[in-house]
Amino acid sequence: MSQLKNKPTYFCALVIMTASQIIIKNSILLMNHNFSYEQLFAFVSKVFLKMGCIEQHVTLATEVLLSADIRGVDSHGVARLSGYVRLWEAKRINATPNIRVVHETPSTAAVDGDAGLGLVVAPFAMQVAIEKAQKVGTGWVSVKNSNHFGIAGYHAMMALPHNMIGIAMTNASALVAPTFSTERMLGTNPIGVAIPANNEPPFVADFATTTASNGKLEILQRKNEEAPLGWVQDVNGEATTNAAALKEGGAMLPLGGDREHGSHKGYALGSIVDIFSAVLSGASYGPWAPPFPAYVPIPQNMPGEGLGHFLGAMRVDAFRPAEEFTENMDNWIRRFRAAKPSAGHEKVLIPGDIEREMEAIRRKEGIPLFESVVEDLRGVGEKMGVTFDD
Amino acid sequence: MSQLKNKPTYFCALVIMTASQIIIKNSILLMNHNFSYEQLFAFVSKVFLKMGCIEQHVTLATEVLLSADIRGVDSHGVARLSGYVRLWEAKRINATPNIRVVHETPSTAAVDGDAGLGLVVAPFAMQVAIEKAQKVGTGWVSVKNSNHFGIAGYHAMMALPHNMIGIAMTNASALVAPTFSTERMLGTNPIGVAIPANNEPPFVADFATTTASNGKLEILQRKNEEAPLGWVQDVNGEATTNAAALKEGGAMLPLGGDREHGSHKGYALGSIVDIFSAVLSGASYGPWAPPFPAYVPIPQNMPGEGLGHFLGAMRVDAFRPAEEFTENMDNWIRRFRAAKPSAGHEKVLIPGDIEREMEAIRRKEGIPLFESVVEDLRGVGEKMGVTFDD
Repeated sequence: MSQLKNKPTYFCALVIMTASQIIIKNSILLMNHNFSYEQLFAFVSKVFLKMGCIEQHVTLATEVLLSADIRGVDSHGVARLSGYVRLWEAKRINATPNIRVVHETPSTAAVDGDAGLGLVVAPFAMQVAIEKAQKVGTGWVSVKNSNHFGIAGYHAMMALPHNMIGIAMTNASALVAPTFSTERMLGTNPIGVAIPANNEPPFVADFATTTASNGKLEILQRKNEEAPLGWVQDVNGEATTNAAALKEGGAMLPLGGDREHGSHKGYALGSIVDIFSAVLSGASYGPWAPPFPAYVPIPQNMPGEGLGHFLGAMRVDAFRPAEEFTENMDNWIRRFRAAKPSAGHEKVLIPGDIEREMEAIRRKEGIPLFESVVEDLRGVGEKMGVTFDD
Repeated sequence: MSQLKNKPTYFCALVIMTASQIIIKNSILLMNHNFSYEQLFAFVSKVFLKMGCIEQHVTLATEVLLSADIRGVDSHGVARLSGYVRLWEAKRINATPNIRVVHETPSTAAVDGDAGLGLVVAPFAMQVAIEKAQKVGTGWVSVKNSNHFGIAGYHAMMALPHNMIGIAMTNASALVAPTFSTERMLGTNPIGVAIPANNEPPFVADFATTTASNGKLEILQRKNEEAPLGWVQDVNGEATTNAAALKEGGAMLPLGGDREHGSHKGYALGSIVDIFSAVLSGASYGPWAPPFPAYVPIPQNMPGEGLGHFLGAMRVDAFRPAEEFTENMDNWIRRFRAAKPSAGHEKVLIPGDIEREMEAIRRKEGIPLFESVVEDLRGVGEKMGVTFDD
């Protein structure tokens, strides 16, 4: 809502519209308000369909993209739709990929995503991992020649209905400097891990291997606020509270922030994600990872093809009887939830709690979009000949 | 050396001894100086032999324990020998375990460590993982009923000669509070990942999932110095620079330090290690993990048996031809090593560089031990009827 302060025109429009409950065709996209999941699903689907994706991919890509919005990870959902479209226009995304296994053993596979949307390549690879796990206990798939795959958590959670632990990671455009460096060498390289329980909801961790996300930095920039020390460094590698440092040639920092607080561990984690996702598969790694913004040229002399992912599935009954495992997970979750909270905090959270609570709210109340995102979507709609209500 | 300031007697002894180059039988253990790897190997072996370990276990346990000292991880080597002995005296460590696979699939196994030394249980489990990887591409082993396994890096590195990626993790005595809690619920739960290269040395990450190690805190306490904010919290969950806070009822903090700097990510990582190591295997997890100090009673109503580990091995040629992978790892390592260093830093390090450089130095110059550690070893020697030169 803070944005509205700078945009009195839209604010007035919102007040008038809300008061009168009038929905004016096309103008709805100008407002900063809530959209239903179904409304966004219909719109995004039509965009992917116009790109030429086959119907199965349209539904899947839309579901994966919107899983971010519905779970509250606003940076990875419809806010990125225009970016995918621009990559498709630049012929860096292939709307009709021939995604295929190019190498395999009973418990592993390497997948070539054929430059497809990561939103469909990653679920394909995760499905391969799950099928291998069904046969030999675990399945592990490294993917090359892909693109941004949305949220890691979606792919990891695909394992849950099979009573499997799911793991998903991806490399990404280089924005992060290793400890002791001024150079951007790694992406925010997220890790998702989903673990089934019995009566309790699952444990779902999904986090970038940096101190903070780029999305949070952008919000501070828009608000003209400072960032906490430890999130970014300036072009000389000095710690800074300037939220715009990244755009001024600085870099994001690995989880830990500085050496004294363990940034070498965050740097190691981000590196492991890069190597598992891209070196193992034959994708482009480190500073050569293909950039998400289509206006940024592809790096010279890329050592591999496209972006890389790494997906894993482990059957819990490959280690002990499934009920024993899931009942102990219930116990684990309840014990951690009952841990004594520190002053000012109501309770200890289990990874996945916030996103699940957000999903319950947004399924009911709709998904709020910043008006900048709405404007962006309107642009996509105009470009692709699609509106919300056509 | 800072310790010596508080102990003038020992300091004088050291000066005299060093000057005269006289080695007095038994007194050598009183000095703060360097010991050769072989000297420590002979001593530690004799201690494990006296405990009743079979010869194969004696050699292996000694090698694993000393791999910490030789690589510069002083907190996890001979400094812990007296702790293992006390656990054995308390009948919490079984010197003659029947370590066995209790459940398996082609790519997985669950191992019962029979309360053996983690120093031998973990290599057994890693060997099982490697053999499974040889057959089906990857192998994953979860271990229950074990004890402290030394450094994670040793076990992960077992995969390297087989051109495999090695992964090792373990849960540990609860010292770490989850984000928003005052209660110690997790151990420092380290992760080790070893990745082979071709001409370059391997990538070896080995880190606790906390901001800093307990060993570093202890050193600050001895020096009577303050800890950086973000390492520990006090009994009320408030950030503190008091290095003794842990001993006064406080807790260590997950990697990230506080919520603003991503401690929820460190908490998630430590939790994943706990669940993979202990819930998957049937070991005791979370706050119920058995404590390392033998004087601390075993928790009531433990939900599983002993400590847990998780070991993994992935054949690189299960994803792409091995030479392609290792040559790209060379390229990865060289590119990261060449990343532009920030002011005041000579170069960017690759995980494993520091430990490998330390090993080269210590193989030549010996392993320096604090005199408190030497005294501790002398106590072990007296108790077990073993001296350095008998």
